[in-house]
This record gives sequence, C-alpha cells and structure tokens, in this order.
Amino acid sequence: MKVLTPTAITLALALSNPAHADVVLINAFEVPPEQRDAVISAWEDARDFLSAQPGYIETALHGAITPGARFELVNIARWESLEAFMEATQAMRASGVFDPPQGTRANPALYSVVRTD
Amino acid sequence: MKVLTPTAITLALALSNPAHADVVLINAFEVPPEQRDAVISAWEDARDFLSAQPGYIETALHGAITPGARFELVNIARWESLEAFMEATQAMRASGVFDPPQGTRANPALYSVVRTD
Repeated sequence: MKVLTPTAITLALALSNPAHADVVLINAFEVPPEQRDAVISAWEDARDFLSAQPGYIETALHGAITPGARFELVNIARWESLEAFMEATQAMRASGVFDPPQGTRANPALYSVVRTD
Repeated sequence: MKVLTPTAITLALALSNPAHADVVLINAFEVPPEQRDAVISAWEDARDFLSAQPGYIETALHGAITPGARFELVNIARWESLEAFMEATQAMRASGVFDPPQGTRANPALYSVVRTD
C-alpha cells in the first residue's frame, strides 16, 4: 500500500502553499474485502503514532455503507500546517511503525477547502 | 460525470443501515485540468439545490494542493439520514439542475465513521 510518499509532496508544493495554513489529508483506499480488517488495524497503528506528533488536529476513518463502493475506506485528517504534516509522516516512515497489507491501494493527497455552503 | 446514481444506493443499503443515522457523502472527482472550473461551477449549482432540502447539514468542496493528485476535487457532505440524502438527490436529478461537464469521473459513495482519535 502506497501512503504519503515523499515524491507525492514535492518542493513545488512547499513553495506554492503557505506552510502555516490548515491542510486536509484525504486518503481513499481501494481494499480487497478480505483485507478490510487488516487495513483498519494498520490505520490504527499510524493514527497512534501521528496523533502524538506536533501539528496534529484530528482524524477519522470512514467505512463505506454504499454496496460496491470503489473506496471501501477513506481517511480524513486535519493538520495545522503542511510543514507539520510532512515532518510527522517522515518520522512515521522512519519509525517503521506503519506496515500496511499488500494488495491495497492508497490514494493520499493534501487538500484545502475551495467552496463551502 | 456520474453522480449519485440510483443503482449506487440500493435497497440492500436501505435495509442494512439505520435510516436516521448521520451519513457522510464522499465524492472524489477525477478532473481533467481544463475542466476544473466547470466542475466547481456545476458543484455550486448542486450545492444550491441540495442545501435547501430537508436533512442537509453541511458540505465542503476540497481542492488538491498535492501536485498530480489523482483526485483534483473531493466533496465531503453530511446528511441527517440516508433517507433524507436519497430523497434530496432524487429530487435534484428530477430537476435537471445538475449538468456536469463530460470527461470528469465522479466516485460518490456514502460512509459512516468507523474509527477516530
């Protein structure tokens, strides 16, 4: 499972966005049904590590209730800044705490809100 | 652009989940760069219609700040119940108010929170 790779967060990103604005991680997982529990368990390990890092605000793992949804699990997390998020996820990779199952595809990206009600 | 099709929300879903629990719509859009503004405009039309329907709580359209993100736009909306969401989106389809551009793929599904911090 690919997650939060350094290449996904480039220097261009760092240069083109303010380092101290709230950012939202949205990570949509394509999960084989038999791996759902294993992915949730790996997510819990990552959450336990990341929630102790500076700049962490909140996270919630969403499970599909629509039958046959393309993305069985979607993580939505909020961080105080791009900089804090990058440092935390680099520390997590270095720690080796996150060991997700094979066969699951993650689609992590950072977002900001562009429209609301 | 496919969005909120009746087939995506089946009788099985209605029978297997409580009709009066909060639900979260997550809709990840694969958007050709030249269509980004048109998709945002179509989203605004849908928001204006849906936000006036019973059971609507809130919505936010997220734009990627990660270069090359697979999903350039992600809508996250909250509804009071599955039933309210289904009635509102059926009314929107019947109204014809939502006219998204061709070439964009939407991946709408309903979720509930399965883990949090």
